[in-house]
Amino acid sequence: MKTYNNFILKFTGLILVLCLTACASQQPVEATPDPLASWTNGATKQRITAFVNTVTDSTNTDFVPASQRIATFDNDGTLWAEKPTYFQLLFIVDRVKAMAADHPEWRTTQPFQAVLENDMAALKASGEHGLIKLAMATQAGMTTEEFEVIVNNWLATAQHPTTGKPYTQMVYKPMLELLDYLRANGFKVFIVSGGGLEFMRPWTEAIYGIPPDQVVGSSIETKYELRGGKPVLVRLPEIHFIDDNVTKPVAINRFIGQRPILAFGNSDGDFEMLKWTTSGSGKRLGLIVHHTDAEREWAYDRDSSEGRLNRGLDEAAENGWLLVDMARDWQVIHP
Amino acid sequence: MKTYNNFILKFTGLILVLCLTACASQQPVEATPDPLASWTNGATKQRITAFVNTVTDSTNTDFVPASQRIATFDNDGTLWAEKPTYFQLLFIVDRVKAMAADHPEWRTTQPFQAVLENDMAALKASGEHGLIKLAMATQAGMTTEEFEVIVNNWLATAQHPTTGKPYTQMVYKPMLELLDYLRANGFKVFIVSGGGLEFMRPWTEAIYGIPPDQVVGSSIETKYELRGGKPVLVRLPEIHFIDDNVTKPVAINRFIGQRPILAFGNSDGDFEMLKWTTSGSGKRLGLIVHHTDAEREWAYDRDSSEGRLNRGLDEAAENGWLLVDMARDWQVIHP
Repeated sequence: MKTYNNFILKFTGLILVLCLTACASQQPVEATPDPLASWTNGATKQRITAFVNTVTDSTNTDFVPASQRIATFDNDGTLWAEKPTYFQLLFIVDRVKAMAADHPEWRTTQPFQAVLENDMAALKASGEHGLIKLAMATQAGMTTEEFEVIVNNWLATAQHPTTGKPYTQMVYKPMLELLDYLRANGFKVFIVSGGGLEFMRPWTEAIYGIPPDQVVGSSIETKYELRGGKPVLVRLPEIHFIDDNVTKPVAINRFIGQRPILAFGNSDGDFEMLKWTTSGSGKRLGLIVHHTDAEREWAYDRDSSEGRLNRGLDEAAENGWLLVDMARDWQVIHP
Repeated sequence: MKTYNNFILKFTGLILVLCLTACASQQPVEATPDPLASWTNGATKQRITAFVNTVTDSTNTDFVPASQRIATFDNDGTLWAEKPTYFQLLFIVDRVKAMAADHPEWRTTQPFQAVLENDMAALKASGEHGLIKLAMATQAGMTTEEFEVIVNNWLATAQHPTTGKPYTQMVYKPMLELLDYLRANGFKVFIVSGGGLEFMRPWTEAIYGIPPDQVVGSSIETKYELRGGKPVLVRLPEIHFIDDNVTKPVAINRFIGQRPILAFGNSDGDFEMLKWTTSGSGKRLGLIVHHTDAEREWAYDRDSSEGRLNRGLDEAAENGWLLVDMARDWQVIHP
């Protein structure tokens, strides 16, 4: 009997251990690693975690239900770099060069000639009108699915002009951690960028974990038509919407339909998005990446042609927005 | 020792039972009730469940990863009724009446006069132009947040003209079940409707479980401005986008950024959405609610001014689309 009991005891104990192990694997008790490990321990990081702790604490008067935890992020200069210039502009330049053989007239037509001759002065002189011309010539005329292939092929081979890295490695590690941290706390995270919708969507899910329908941006007109009996959407050389400064809240309202409780930008193009976000009732958080790190990244603000941050610097304090000092607050820049 | 062993045995057994109970509560073994209980058992229901089983079965060659399980639903006539006319039009009529005291000129100005005198012939004679005039007069000029309050107040008090029910009870129970069933199977479900974005968003989450950012529809222009230092979005009397027939795939591409694998409509206004959806590669499902039930709902198709279904009836078979016969396939209509 004793042997039998011992057997039962051991057998039961074994099952118990197995079962407890199973239970444990479902509810780990180990200390969780810091979800914001690339952020310097200090006031900035503390303010972010305090905000998240507050709005997710159902006993707190500032609790926000998960369905209303909307966070919006600018892309260029906020989630990935924007120097020496916006990556989509570098894509357009590469497209002009790749398409030039089929367009001999470009060799003597501005602003194409400027691109082909790497003549930055002439390119700048062509102004906004010139840029739109380049954008339409290289990004319209094909179907949406053909354009997706073009973007993916470019990303697979193109290298950043100064670091030599693929562009998708020019993203900011602390921001990737923040996106994950917010999602783990029930936030729905959106991009709200001046960049093109269809330039971003092919890769935002793989790189940021942000699915295509949570990407808001600028767009051109598209047209439904049948080709050989099959429907396609053709990209037309006409601007539909530019998502920048005062139109960012317009786009947030149109695409998201709720006012965010957290917004993160880096330039005056994000000013109104931050203003709109932080003017709502209840607890809100507005954040601005301040590019202060000339050694590990770039240092620029008031006088930059990309990511110009002037009004945002002057008015961040009175609006209660947090300036994230890249040199001070980020221990690591890129993954 | 034996007593001690017995004690250990009992104690261990107790913990084991508790633990197994805990494990069991995490993985219930009871039979699940039919998620599509309001659908008649038959070919239609079977085809829906077979499709879902196929695309969610990771061992099947037609498996679709959850991130690509996009389903789009029309609203008027698909998720809720659209007779005697579109509910948003009834909302506009009620708004004209509610606002008439502040607009004495409406008593002698068409199409307002027609609405105030319940003169349907004169209202119809005013045509699309007249309707747009009514829509702009009643749905623009206020902020987006003021409009949301107006919609919510109307829904809380307005009654359907023939059933006397609140409009949000004029939704279809089989469709509510289908939305839940798809979500339970990893689908992300969107509305793609000709109705106004901001007319739908205040209530779609509570009624359909569809959050504001998963609602695609028609829209008017909005403008960001500061009022007393606070930002607001003002609704302008200008159409931004009409989401109907050939523009539904355009809107899907712009808002969702992926081609759906399932689309459900009820009228020729959904034709291109179904065509776009079912022309993609892999397994696809296109469905059309056919309003065949004059007793429990309404029976209409080719000659109806709402939800006209003509081409869809003729071409459903050759496109492989499933006609859902309301009288035959739905055991219950409203919740």
